Amino acid sequence: MRFFSDNAAPACPAVLEAIAAANTLDTAYDGDGWSVKLDDRFSELFETRVRALWIATGTAANSLALAALCPPHGGVVCHSEAHVNVDECGAPEFYTHGAKLLPADGDGAKLTPETVEALLGTIRDDVHQVQPRALSITNATEYGRVYAPDEVAALGAICDRRGLGLHMDGARFANAIAHLGCSPADVTWRAGVDVLSFGFVKNGGLSAEALIFFKPDLAADTRYRRKRAGHLLSKGRYLAAQILAMLDGDVWLENARAANAAAAMLATAAGDRLVHPVEANEVFLRVTPEEAESLRALGFDFYDWGPDEARLVTSWNHGAEAVAPLAQAIAAL
Amino acid sequence: MRFFSDNAAPACPAVLEAIAAANTLDTAYDGDGWSVKLDDRFSELFETRVRALWIATGTAANSLALAALCPPHGGVVCHSEAHVNVDECGAPEFYTHGAKLLPADGDGAKLTPETVEALLGTIRDDVHQVQPRALSITNATEYGRVYAPDEVAALGAICDRRGLGLHMDGARFANAIAHLGCSPADVTWRAGVDVLSFGFVKNGGLSAEALIFFKPDLAADTRYRRKRAGHLLSKGRYLAAQILAMLDGDVWLENARAANAAAAMLATAAGDRLVHPVEANEVFLRVTPEEAESLRALGFDFYDWGPDEARLVTSWNHGAEAVAPLAQAIAAL
Amino acid sequence: MRFFSDNAAPACPAVLEAIAAANTLDTAYDGDGWSVKLDDRFSELFETRVRALWIATGTAANSLALAALCPPHGGVVCHSEAHVNVDECGAPEFYTHGAKLLPADGDGAKLTPETVEALLGTIRDDVHQVQPRALSITNATEYGRVYAPDEVAALGAICDRRGLGLHMDGARFANAIAHLGCSPADVTWRAGVDVLSFGFVKNGGLSAEALIFFKPDLAADTRYRRKRAGHLLSKGRYLAAQILAMLDGDVWLENARAANAAAAMLATAAGDRLVHPVEANEVFLRVTPEEAESLRALGFDFYDWGPDEARLVTSWNHGAEAVAPLAQAIAAL
Amino acid sequence: MRFFSDNAAPACPAVLEAIAAANTLDTAYDGDGWSVKLDDRFSELFETRVRALWIATGTAANSLALAALCPPHGGVVCHSEAHVNVDECGAPEFYTHGAKLLPADGDGAKLTPETVEALLGTIRDDVHQVQPRALSITNATEYGRVYAPDEVAALGAICDRRGLGLHMDGARFANAIAHLGCSPADVTWRAGVDVLSFGFVKNGGLSAEALIFFKPDLAADTRYRRKRAGHLLSKGRYLAAQILAMLDGDVWLENARAANAAAAMLATAAGDRLVHPVEANEVFLRVTPEEAESLRALGFDFYDWGPDEARLVTSWNHGAEAVAPLAQAIAAL
Repeated sequence: MRFFSDNAAPACPAVLEAIAAANTLDTAYDGDGWSVKLDDRFSELFETRVRALWIATGTAANSLALAALCPPHGGVVCHSEAHVNVDECGAPEFYTHGAKLLPADGDGAKLTPETVEALLGTIRDDVHQVQPRALSITNATEYGRVYAPDEVAALGAICDRRGLGLHMDGARFANAIAHLGCSPADVTWRAGVDVLSFGFVKNGGLSAEALIFFKPDLAADTRYRRKRAGHLLSKGRYLAAQILAMLDGDVWLENARAANAAAAMLATAAGDRLVHPVEANEVFLRVTPEEAESLRALGFDFYDWGPDEARLVTSWNHGAEAVAPLAQAIAAL
Repeated sequence: MRFFSDNAAPACPAVLEAIAAANTLDTAYDGDGWSVKLDDRFSELFETRVRALWIATGTAANSLALAALCPPHGGVVCHSEAHVNVDECGAPEFYTHGAKLLPADGDGAKLTPETVEALLGTIRDDVHQVQPRALSITNATEYGRVYAPDEVAALGAICDRRGLGLHMDGARFANAIAHLGCSPADVTWRAGVDVLSFGFVKNGGLSAEALIFFKPDLAADTRYRRKRAGHLLSKGRYLAAQILAMLDGDVWLENARAANAAAAMLATAAGDRLVHPVEANEVFLRVTPEEAESLRALGFDFYDWGPDEARLVTSWNHGAEAVAPLAQAIAAL
Repeated sequence: MRFFSDNAAPACPAVLEAIAAANTLDTAYDGDGWSVKLDDRFSELFETRVRALWIATGTAANSLALAALCPPHGGVVCHSEAHVNVDECGAPEFYTHGAKLLPADGDGAKLTPETVEALLGTIRDDVHQVQPRALSITNATEYGRVYAPDEVAALGAICDRRGLGLHMDGARFANAIAHLGCSPADVTWRAGVDVLSFGFVKNGGLSAEALIFFKPDLAADTRYRRKRAGHLLSKGRYLAAQILAMLDGDVWLENARAANAAAAMLATAAGDRLVHPVEANEVFLRVTPEEAESLRALGFDFYDWGPDEARLVTSWNHGAEAVAPLAQAIAAL
Repeated sequence: MRFFSDNAAPACPAVLEAIAAANTLDTAYDGDGWSVKLDDRFSELFETRVRALWIATGTAANSLALAALCPPHGGVVCHSEAHVNVDECGAPEFYTHGAKLLPADGDGAKLTPETVEALLGTIRDDVHQVQPRALSITNATEYGRVYAPDEVAALGAICDRRGLGLHMDGARFANAIAHLGCSPADVTWRAGVDVLSFGFVKNGGLSAEALIFFKPDLAADTRYRRKRAGHLLSKGRYLAAQILAMLDGDVWLENARAANAAAAMLATAAGDRLVHPVEANEVFLRVTPEEAESLRALGFDFYDWGPDEARLVTSWNHGAEAVAPLAQAIAAL
């Protein structure tokens, strides 16, 4: 059984059904009956007027968001271990035309007002240095940590004071919301977020993420940028349909709860071995190479994460019965 | 009935079935069991060793191809009405980092050795002018015209002599092959083509095109560029599966033949009204606004193409019985 | 005697003296005593509040201007023979990050409201096409033609109506003003120009052009872009000093008048041979290859401009006595 | 007396004389009699065949060098405090079209094989991470430290093994050579350097740096990139003349020796206050704010460099008599 990444899981049934149901002639690009519903549907979910665009990947969603917030000669503050900084092959630099990522620190890949201010304090306000124009945070983070509304708001206040745009990489936004139990609005626009990459693929989608603009004006240019990046699929209805299907009946939230519950079961079994508190669907364990090997010998697979550490990611389809044997094996180490 | 674009057609059954069959956990990105077969499968089809990457859109495929062939300070010769020049919102400029499209002329959006040489003759070989580094042709063209192998070879010879890379935008490559009846090799690498954007979406696919490198080395950097552009879908297997399903049993060719046959039926009905010879699945008609209106009143829809001209595009699912009423209506104008 | 280009002329005495006078320690970059005077000095000249930046080349000045007016996904309307389109090796595309130049027509490289509207009329207002965001005109044009204030204003009105920024490439702005005899304000901001590249190098400068922002806000980002392009010289005072020296006592205007007068003398001699009316310091002549050869045999050199045409450019240092022999030779052809 | 930066010093007499001597009509751009001599002159100096281009600024020279070595999707290893990383407003990102700077550590802004390997070891060889393609070092460094030939060679060996291009930012290359007393060849191409930004401006030039390609092929595209960046001055002869004047009679070396000697005098006076060994023309002192104030009260000015630290930079024109009072004042603190 594989726990490499929620990226690798299959799509959930509602998504496959929605694709089949959308398999009829309609207007190309995003003029179809599904795509045109996204704005309203997300506005309802977020309790404010938003503009929503489907995007095929989280990397493109993040990069388009940053390009909307930061000019080519600006900088984007992010955690040094943020996905945008280390795992996207320079996509933010491509989309922003060379804006500079300005890495700051924090435990569990979480930024804090202190670490952000510390970084900002190193930048002279003169033409020789790249000036910060945006801040990007990941919720849940790359280590499965969750920003609570007040934590985001504290960063939002810095952005507000300094004139920075605020982007949230929500590749695992559903997992964060499932953990927080708050309204999606509380941890986004109410806390100062301007643009959200709302992930669906890791959470049971097939090929659709949503890019949510809480300042609708920012979406106008992004529609051109999306096309220019070759991300305006001609049969966009299949992406919109996936998203709508996951919003209907809160499939997105159910899926995230299932993945989080599976991770929680592993966390309980892991006890002192946990490197980070488990708040979403990622579990980082201290294990010796021999211990890791013994788990693999039992049929479980996962990434080594540096020496003596392993990363296990649970997915929407990891029910209790599927994860229990791994939890047992971890407890028995 | 709509004849706006083959872009708007549904996906064909084989594609939907393939997606469902791929709906199982596998390695993320392009390490899955489907993606790894593409090189071999296309190498077989093209009778030479190729590298093949799935790409979600034709715009991205074209742009990645051009970026592989042309440096930021170079130029790409193309027809003034080429899709890359007028319908991709500057995507080639984005991916190449500002290479310049150098438009040349030709009937039916077809370049000829004469028009290409005429353009090249206007460019001084000095540092003040953008130097041509690639040539891009569309087969079938934006007006549904098809380049025969010897026509491509004549352009390939210019490229060879001048050190230009040769790209073929094959958004409707299947339609071209269905018309020509030749081996796909004859009209591509045997005629000097370096990179082909092989379209599947207009031909019954859902969200997958293939980018074929006849010089496999060119693919290496493109793998990074694809990721950097946010085009490396994490669940790439669903794209690979679509393509494989259309290659199996020559679905791609059957679909194209069906669309071409539908267009041929319309062409026969249109007679003298044809603006361009109908060789693929696009029909351009001379019609007055009143005539266009009368067709629409019968339930047929399509784009006006300037004053007194209409564009009708047929699709893989336009069987004879579906198109006959339109043919009749055209004949009766 | 060479009439290739005003580019090749020496610097005028006032410029050399100013450089020598500036050769003392001062604040680096543009904090020195010369640079800080530019805003006031140009504001006075233009009878309105402007921001002025020195730039070492016209190509960089033009490109920075266009980058200030046009986003990467936008388009810049210009004449098909404009310097920015054909003689800058893609610099505008580099600085704008791939904006597309949208070439329009007009005699003598002059755009007209009709040709601009004709071009704009071909662009659909949809996400597939690059949308125009700026217009660039050259005054005097690449063929030595001059836009009068009302001609600029007519284009400015289009820009105003369509929301386009208006850039004037004034590589030979001094020659245009010398011809028009109007206030520099009349043919720039009063006619709707947002940014002017004010050329000094062709007119007797050594290495300094001025970029004039009539909307001062546009200059703020450009200061960063200038640095980012490596165009913020550390000893900027030598550039500012050149410009100030040419503004003092209207050296810029005297130099331009001298060059224009020399061209006028040649024009008179040329009579019917003129391809374009001579309004600035460029003379385009119909001459057979044999005639061109005979002029060269007399010691005059210049560019052939296509078959049976020659381009002669006069400079600030071409006094009547220097040009008279060439005028005589032309008259004698 | 100001010790802010060698950037602010006047140009040396030989440079002014050379500019005056070049003030005659010649071929524009780099076809003039001075520019065409650069290749030979630098080939002689470096004891191997090189290609040399004049560039108006060090920022542009560095950025063009990096663009020649690193594709847009690649990375450039450099010191975290390197000028290219923190003081060029993102110019390397602009010129490389978004390549990523990959910062490594080392005392005195010097990289070591260990710190470079440590950084490289963090980069996975997969498509999600920016792959290193070049290494950039500064000699003398931003803290006035000098790389000896064997130190460069050790880094060159890593580059060789890993397929990285090696760039040397030689804004103060002359000061490094003056310190080392070696042949310029020893610390550049013999040690594996591919491209050198050879600074002249900080060393008594007015507006000319040289970009030296030890692999001459790399220069070909750079000539286009230079034009495209607006850095091909039309009156390039004035830049070439400056450089030639400083090479003649080893003015470049004499100037650097003078600046280094001035710094050495300050270093001797500073004793234990030195933060870094003084090897070139920069002196970093531990001083309290009160001590700094007392020096300023005596008429000496300089930058604070963080709390309790001051940076003093000497210039080619700082003779012993000019510096002695400052040395005395420092010794008396």
